[in-house]
Formats: sequence, C-alpha cells, structure tokens
Amino acid sequence: MTDRKEFRELVPPQQAHEAIASLDLGGGSEAVSLREARGRVLAERVDADLDVPGFDRASMDGYAVRARDTFGADEADPVVLDLAGSVHAGEEPDVTVEAGSCVEISTGAVMPPGADAVVMVERTDERENGSAVEIRTSLAPGDHVMLAGADVAGGERALGPGTRLTPREIGLLSALGVDAVPVRSKPHVGIVSTGDELVRPGEALHSERGQIYDVNSYTIATAVEEAGGEAELYPHAGDDYEEMERVLTEAAEECDLVLSSGSTSASAVDVIYRVIEDRGELLLHGVAIKPGKPMLVGEFPDSAYVGLPGYPVSALMIFRHFVAGAIRRAAGVPEPRTATVEAEMALEERYGEGRTRLMPVGLIENGEGTTLAYPVDKGSGATTSLVEADGVVEVDPDTAYLDAGERVSVDLFSPDVRPPGVFGVGEDDPFLSGVLDELDHPRYLSIGGRQGLRRLDRGAPDFAVTSGPVERELDATEFGGWSREWGLVVPSDNPEGIEELADLADRELRFVNRPTDSGLRGTLDDAVETLAGERGESRADLTERIDGYELTVRAQESPARKVAADGADAGLGLRATAEKLGLGFVSLGEERVTVLANPDRMEKPGVERLREVLETAEIEGLPGFGG
Amino acid sequence: MTDRKEFRELVPPQQAHEAIASLDLGGGSEAVSLREARGRVLAERVDADLDVPGFDRASMDGYAVRARDTFGADEADPVVLDLAGSVHAGEEPDVTVEAGSCVEISTGAVMPPGADAVVMVERTDERENGSAVEIRTSLAPGDHVMLAGADVAGGERALGPGTRLTPREIGLLSALGVDAVPVRSKPHVGIVSTGDELVRPGEALHSERGQIYDVNSYTIATAVEEAGGEAELYPHAGDDYEEMERVLTEAAEECDLVLSSGSTSASAVDVIYRVIEDRGELLLHGVAIKPGKPMLVGEFPDSAYVGLPGYPVSALMIFRHFVAGAIRRAAGVPEPRTATVEAEMALEERYGEGRTRLMPVGLIENGEGTTLAYPVDKGSGATTSLVEADGVVEVDPDTAYLDAGERVSVDLFSPDVRPPGVFGVGEDDPFLSGVLDELDHPRYLSIGGRQGLRRLDRGAPDFAVTSGPVERELDATEFGGWSREWGLVVPSDNPEGIEELADLADRELRFVNRPTDSGLRGTLDDAVETLAGERGESRADLTERIDGYELTVRAQESPARKVAADGADAGLGLRATAEKLGLGFVSLGEERVTVLANPDRMEKPGVERLREVLETAEIEGLPGFGG
Repeated sequence: MTDRKEFRELVPPQQAHEAIASLDLGGGSEAVSLREARGRVLAERVDADLDVPGFDRASMDGYAVRARDTFGADEADPVVLDLAGSVHAGEEPDVTVEAGSCVEISTGAVMPPGADAVVMVERTDERENGSAVEIRTSLAPGDHVMLAGADVAGGERALGPGTRLTPREIGLLSALGVDAVPVRSKPHVGIVSTGDELVRPGEALHSERGQIYDVNSYTIATAVEEAGGEAELYPHAGDDYEEMERVLTEAAEECDLVLSSGSTSASAVDVIYRVIEDRGELLLHGVAIKPGKPMLVGEFPDSAYVGLPGYPVSALMIFRHFVAGAIRRAAGVPEPRTATVEAEMALEERYGEGRTRLMPVGLIENGEGTTLAYPVDKGSGATTSLVEADGVVEVDPDTAYLDAGERVSVDLFSPDVRPPGVFGVGEDDPFLSGVLDELDHPRYLSIGGRQGLRRLDRGAPDFAVTSGPVERELDATEFGGWSREWGLVVPSDNPEGIEELADLADRELRFVNRPTDSGLRGTLDDAVETLAGERGESRADLTERIDGYELTVRAQESPARKVAADGADAGLGLRATAEKLGLGFVSLGEERVTVLANPDRMEKPGVERLREVLETAEIEGLPGFGG
Repeated sequence: MTDRKEFRELVPPQQAHEAIASLDLGGGSEAVSLREARGRVLAERVDADLDVPGFDRASMDGYAVRARDTFGADEADPVVLDLAGSVHAGEEPDVTVEAGSCVEISTGAVMPPGADAVVMVERTDERENGSAVEIRTSLAPGDHVMLAGADVAGGERALGPGTRLTPREIGLLSALGVDAVPVRSKPHVGIVSTGDELVRPGEALHSERGQIYDVNSYTIATAVEEAGGEAELYPHAGDDYEEMERVLTEAAEECDLVLSSGSTSASAVDVIYRVIEDRGELLLHGVAIKPGKPMLVGEFPDSAYVGLPGYPVSALMIFRHFVAGAIRRAAGVPEPRTATVEAEMALEERYGEGRTRLMPVGLIENGEGTTLAYPVDKGSGATTSLVEADGVVEVDPDTAYLDAGERVSVDLFSPDVRPPGVFGVGEDDPFLSGVLDELDHPRYLSIGGRQGLRRLDRGAPDFAVTSGPVERELDATEFGGWSREWGLVVPSDNPEGIEELADLADRELRFVNRPTDSGLRGTLDDAVETLAGERGESRADLTERIDGYELTVRAQESPARKVAADGADAGLGLRATAEKLGLGFVSLGEERVTVLANPDRMEKPGVERLREVLETAEIEGLPGFGG
C-alpha cells in the first residue's frame, strides 16, 4: 500500500498528456475498398501505375482526321474527306485513317491509327450517301485529342501518405483503378463501464434495485468513433476483483486501448487499481485537474489503458481533453477545424481551486452574433447537463476569476456540436414543448419559471417562460403567452372524493408538491395564502397540516406520475396532464404562462422565429389550455 | 422533336434549383440502435419516459442516516449511530434506517427507507467491532442524495425533432434507456455512370479497346454519403436505349433519387432524354451555367432524377451546387460550417460568357494566413484537376472580371477538404516525391519545371522545382537542390548499342521526348544545341533528323515506359528511372534540380518545414542522384 500513497500525489496535467502520448495505440495499416475509403487516411504514398487515359482519346464527337488534310479549310472553302468507318467509345478501332479520309468518332473513343486530330461534328456535314464528310475548319495536330497519360502518367506521385480521403481523392484513386486502398487502421478501443447497477439501454430496468441505464459506454463509444477510432462495448464490470480482471484483460487482449469509466466509489477504484498493477503497469493515478482526480493511465501487455471519471460530463471532458487527440493521432486524422470555437464569457466566474479546471460550458449567440460561453453544471453529475454543455474550457490554475466578456477557447464535445439557435429556460409546459418543436435547434432547460427568471436576469438565455405570480421587476419583453387550468391530479375516478384545496389540510391525504422554483408552485402558494386568510390562520399553519407539502418532485408531470405509480392521493398539476395520464382532476383555477425575451436578443433569427411561432401556433389537444 | 427544341433553351440556374427543390427525395423515418445513431437526425421529439435516477440515490460513499440524528455533531462532539446493515449499488435495500441508526451505503445505491441524507465516509469512523459509527458532522435532509427524477423527470421534453445526434445526445438517450432511436431516413441515391468504355476499379482494363476506369460513380457516391444520403452503384449503362432504360428504371424503382453522369456525347444524351420522357417526366434539360449545360432534371414515377455532366470536376461541381443541399435537406442534416470558406483571388480572372459560371478553384494560404483561391482546370476534363480543386466559386453572369485580391466565397467539395499546408509546382522527380512524403498535406503539381517557374511567377504556389537551364530572372529564394544523372533510357542490354546523343540523329532510331515545359527537355535542347554547334549545323536541322523529337509524353517516367511497352528505341530520362524499370541507360550528363520558394511565403509553417526536410533528407536508393 505504500505505492498507492505515492500515486495519490496528483500529477500535473502535462504529465498526463505525456503519459498518454507515450502509449502505443496501434497505428498499423489495412486495405479497404474504395466504397469504404471515405474519411480514411492513406497509410502510404500512391503512385500512378498506369497512364490515364491509357490511349489517345477523342474529346469531342466528330471525325478523326489527319490534321494536314484540313489545312486551309474554312466555312467558305471546306475540304471533303472520304468516310472510312467509325469508332465508338469502348471499341477497338478497326480502321486506319489514310490521307484524304476520316473516321466518325465519339467522345472517349480510341483515336484510330493515322489520325492526329478530331473535328467537332458541328463544323462538318456528312454527304447524303454517307460516303464522305465536308469539313469547314482547319485543325492542328492534337486538336480535341487527349493524349495517353496526359491526365495522369504512369510513375507519377498521385497521393501522399496521410491524405484524408474525400470524394475528390476517391475520384483520383478510381481513375487509377486502385480498389484496395492502403489506409491507416483505426485504433480499436474497448469500452468498459464499471458498476453493478448499470443496465444496457433497451433492457428492462429495476429501479427498486437501484439500476440505472449505462450512459458512458455509449457516449464515449460515439466520441471514440468521432475521433477516428473503432469502439467496442464490453460487458459492465462490477467491483468484484475477478470480474473486473476478466473483463479488463479480455478487452486488453482484443483492443489497442481500453477505456473504463465509472468506479467513482473508493472500493471500485481500488479494484481497478489492483487489476492494472497485477496484469500491467499503472503509469499514473490521479491528475491535478478538476474533474480529473480519479483518472488512471496504464498499460496492459498488449494494450494501453485510461480510466475516466464516472459522471458523464466529466468522462466526456476528460476524454476530449486527454484521450481524443491521441486516438486521432494514431488514426492519422486531423483535428476538425470546427472542433474549437472562440467565445466570450457570458457571466463572471470565480475559482479558488489552485489546480487546472476543465469547465463545461454552454454556448449561445448574443444579439450581435458573438458566441457567448456560460458555465454549466458545477459537478452535479446529472446526465441532462450533457445536453446543456457544448464543450470545455481549460482554466489555468492561476486564474482566480474570469470576467464577463473575457475571451475563452472552447473545445467542443464534437465537431458536429452547433450552438443552439435559441436558448430558453423556465417552466415545463406541454404547449411550449410543441412550440419548441417548430424552432431550429432550440435549447430549453425546464428549471421552473422562477429559476428561469433569475437566469434570464443574469443574461445568458434568450428567453424565459414563467407562470403564475411574477414578483420581480425584469428588463424583459413579453412575447405573449397562454393560460392553463391547474389543480389537483388525483387517481382516476377520484376515489377519495377530493373537492377542494382545503381537503388537503383537513383530511388525511398524501399530497405531492412541486419545488419553489416552479411557477405553478407559486400559484399554489398564493391559493393557499388566500385560503389561510379566509380561515384566519397563517399560511405556515395551513401547509403544516398538508402531508407532503414539502415533498416536491421536479417536473410538471412528476406529481401526477407519483399519483399514478405510488398511490399518493393528490399531486399539483394540470388538467392536460391528468387527462394525458388517464387520471382524475380537481380544478383549482387557471394560471397564465408568459414568454419573456431578453431585450438584447430581439433581432436574433432564432428569437424572431420564436415570436412568429408563438403568434401563429394554435392550441390543440391540450384540455384546459387557452390563448 | 419540337419539345426538345424548347428544352434546349437553357433555363436560369435559379429555375434548376427550384426544380430540384420540388423533387421528392424520400424523407421518412426509421429506428436505429444507439450504436448506429451517431450523426443521424431525430425524426421526432423524444420525451423522457422515466425518471432518472429512478430512485433516491446516494451520491457519495458513506452512511445513510436520518439527518435529524446528526444535528449538532461536529469534529469535537461526534454522534454515534448503530450500524444496521449495508446497501451497495445495484442492490435492493433490505434494511430500514430507524432513529439512532445508520446503514453503510456506496455511491449510486438506493437510499434505504427512513434515511434522508448520506454522510461522507471521510467524516466518520466505524467502531472496531463494526456495530456502530461515529459521525463528525451535521447533515441537512437531502445532503449527498440525488432525488428520483432530479436529473430527468418522466414526461419532460428531452430532445427535439431535427436534433443531430452527437456523443452527448447519445448519452442522454442512453440515460433514458432509448435504444430504438427514431431518426430521419437517409435518402437512397442510385448512381448510374453511362459509357460503354467504363470499367470498375479493381477490374482489368483494356486500353486498346478504349476502356477507362469509372471515376464519377465513386466520387459522387462518396459525396452523396457526405451529404447524408445512402449511395448505391448501379451497373454502367451504355448508350443503347434498352440497356439505359433497364438500368435507369431499376434504379428508379429502388431509390429516392437517381443520379446519372457522363453521356457527354450527343447520342447518349439523346438516349437518356428519351428514356426519361418515356418512363417519367423531364423537367428541364440544360441550365445556363458553365459547366451545367448538359444537366437534366426529371422524375420517374417513384424517384427523382438528375443527370450530371461527365467530366469529374464538372460532375462534382454540379452535384455540390445543385444536388448536395437537396439531399441534406431530405436527410435533415445541416450544412457543415466548414463547407464554405472565404478567400481572396490569387490572380485576376476574366470572363466573357454572359452566363453564370461555376469556377473550380484551388486554395492556398499566403504568408499572412489569408486564404487565396486560384482557378483550376478551365474545362480540360482531367481527373487530376480533381485533386487540385478544393471547391467551387459561383461567378455571376454580369461579372466580366475578378481582380486579384477580390473576395470570393468558396463552396468546398467536402467539409473535410483542407487547403494544402504547402503548394508546389514543377519538375517530376523521384527524390522530390520522398521529400513531399515528409510534409504535412502538401500539394504538388508536376507540370514541368519551366511551366512551374511561370506559375511561381504568377504568385499562387509556395515553391517551384526546376531543373536544367533557367532562362528567366525570378524573384524567388533558392532553397537548395540536388543533381541527377540524365540521358537516354533504352531497352535492357541496349540492343541497338546506342552510345551517344548523335546516334539519335545519325541512325534510324525511334526516340520519345518530354514536352518543352519540362526542365529536363531544356537540358536536352541545350545538349542538342551544343552538338549542332560542334557539327556546324543548326539545331533545327539536327532535331529534324531525330525521329520522335517532337513526340512528347508528359511525365518523368513516361518516355521510359514507352520504351518498355512499345519498343521505342530510346527515351529521355534519368538513370534512376531506367534502373527502377529494369531498362538500359546511356548517360548524357548531370543536371541540377533546384527548389525555389516564393519570397512572400518564407514564414509559412509548411514552407519552413519544406526547408527543414530539404536540409536533412538524405538521398538513398536513387542511382545517379547526388547532393
């Protein structure tokens, strides 16, 4: 265990880069067919092995002639040559052009012996009986003839090693008749997610046993393929030594690189650590970078190894920052130009870690078209922050503070990542969901209307959607809105016979509420306040008597789903939701949903499109909704 | 035939865009597995169908407790709780946390009933006998617990229609357990190259019959796939009506879009034209754009149809300009940001066509990092110009003149096209080929040393390679060079016993020469001049007597290959080439090969790298070469 203590001294990020660069990630070559060569990288130089064309070739439809026979001919004074035969593309000429004769020829055909030029058909007239041709122009030798090898000559250097094969290079290889294209092999990367609780998407999930779907395997496999590797998923390994050893060594035998992820629990890290030490060599354990602390780098006898953190955003950041480039280099694939963008910080951000930080950021364009970056998810481990984060900013350990407006360089999570066309935050609402479907590449975070207003105020989003009472003064432009009927979602047929809000306080009923960030919760709070006033008691006294008033669940449908699943007696919600889920509903009123836009972003095409959709969208199929 | 005349009136390009936009290119949806979903586009909204996590989940290793049991605890005054059991990730808890007790828990495990917080293991000490735990901190309810649905809540909008699936979206879909991902179908595009002379790469080529390898099928298929379509190659169709009808209708029945290419000969166009008219509808025939004149747009009963020109660069330009966007729209794939670059014209260029022109251009960076565009291949039809052309500039019919330095927008042939790192022109030389292999993404056009100097002088290339006599004064920096032994390449064992240059003039020998663009030809011309002077005759008189002095073939190895293949008696060439091809050699001297750099580009990394490689590269395995 003394070794371990040494490793626990976190190494500088540069050392981790060097350790990974020192790994052997394969890098051989293989032959693929032209139809599979797109995007691949030539492993060696390809020289032309033949002339293209392989023969003197007519480049026009017309007549093959001896140029000297046409000297002096023009429109006024044509020459007449005997028509000796014809040759079409794909045929071997069976006729020779003698002095005073010509041969009909089509584009692409082999020049017949004796001929050294082609006259375009437009400058000729064939005599009625087809025995002779009148030629109304003079030709020089070589006119409308492409000589053998004029395009590519045998022995010429055609394409160099390292060339990425796009359609045009595929075209040149086709011309050379090369069908077995020598390309760099793709590094073969094995992915091992660790955790007894993981289940593959598509399989049944047992939440009661704490199962969750595996996120990292698919995220990292996709990122490996984007970087030019070939990914293979291995079975999940739990933190049992024998199982971990079996899965890791199997992957190591079959792959150039093994990536594990997860094992955030101390016990699992210990197991991986021991397997690497026993079956290979651990090069480093823990990097002085946030969130790279649990990162491992090692080697098996025939494979490299990197251990990634377990949280999806952290895993993707560490992959992007340390591993993707190494795979790309082994594959010979250049970093796409779109993989990095320059941005300005949308908000200030403070640090005090004293170590390098990888900061996940979301991107949004402001009204002037400048790309802004704002920090996302400070380590919550939520998979949803994956979809908010567009890339990663490396923040130097000496940086204590990034000011709003400061320029940062963002390494995107994928060269295909596009900043959203429009970015909204706030209330979760079924009509809004349909509106968002009509927008081009929107991003919407349903963090609740109240929380949404706070974020709009801080400046990053383009718009916020709120409902119910709005207490704060905001510099925002109202874009319109709609009303929705709210109340208590109850089991179907309302078995408890709930009739009004007071029932929750006066009877033994289990209620499920929404968090205070939600606008709908504000609407409920107001209704409770009113009821308390009517009864001459305080709101606190009243809510104290509602079993579950503090039991809050996150999203719009969550209380209703609790009612459906758990047998709670009532949940805060909408009539539309109750009807969608086949539940009962006790109406308590209507509330207004409002869309508020950031006034600096009114000219953005995405915001203009939002306004347009809001103005024209019709409310259909949503009971209790109105314009 | 009256119809046809109407169609022969070329339609404006805008009308062709509209005709293609009106075509139905499919656009359905299908379900793919997560592992195949990379880069695909969601066909419909995906709402969360479950809570993530599906249970209240410990987010630390430690002990699950009732928070109120820890009130007031700190380092100085810990509380001690009975240890009632343990729960690990992936297990269903079999123990309840009662007042005064705790349960050991690992990250990711289900919170046991009764517990509402987790204390980190670092803030605890387990008593020796394992029956109790000392806790040295106070907790609030919810500490280190992720509530069910806190990440994603059932019913929430997760991803919208039209979302491109990058690793992070794949991650969110994984979290939701979605394995059958509803994505937009790829338009199925059938590719039909026309021409009896075409042969598939990999098959035997019969040049004597005028066969050439098919270039467009592979180029266009690759470009279709880059645009988000799925390409299928159909057999080549000749210009026989029945064959063309059979192939086109088979493709039309199986595909959403059929693309033909070729049929540049008038007869083949007529055949295609008739097939489309008989089996479908021809929407337009000929577009007022250069080189789009032979373009066809039509519809079969169940498929769209576009006919592309036959020359590879023209076919790719018309595809890029008119068709790629339509495929991308049908596939729901956005145009990559890298698909277009802004550049400055490297040279002036004049027009006088009066119709829109698609100008193929090559790109190169100047010394300041500005991207320059220069026109490539004014319609030669060469496949090699494919590799010189990076993209296409649309030039307005009213533009008679583009000045050097004028800004143009270049639609790249592929989003993966990168401008070359360094661009050279000039002599074809085997040592140079090896030097180029050491450079990053070089472009080199072996157009001959003399032609190379002219192009260097005009300004686009970074460097030129010349050999033999240099007549012109150039503003260029010499970068070093090497010498090569030249002479006459003869059949092996020199059956004619050729000994010197004079033999070519004095004996009945068939000679093969290089073009006057080549530096080596200049060296030969000088030697002939000297010989003529010694004999007191004119150079012209002497060369007149050399059979084949005007028979020139393009590249460095071409005369030697003629000697090997055709039984010519002698060819101009290098000792290294003769030995490589197993031929005989009559030495006539040595000539110097010189690399000359554009003085404005000396600071370019690619040029610096070239200088470095030239300084360190060793000449090995090249007989007759010297430093």
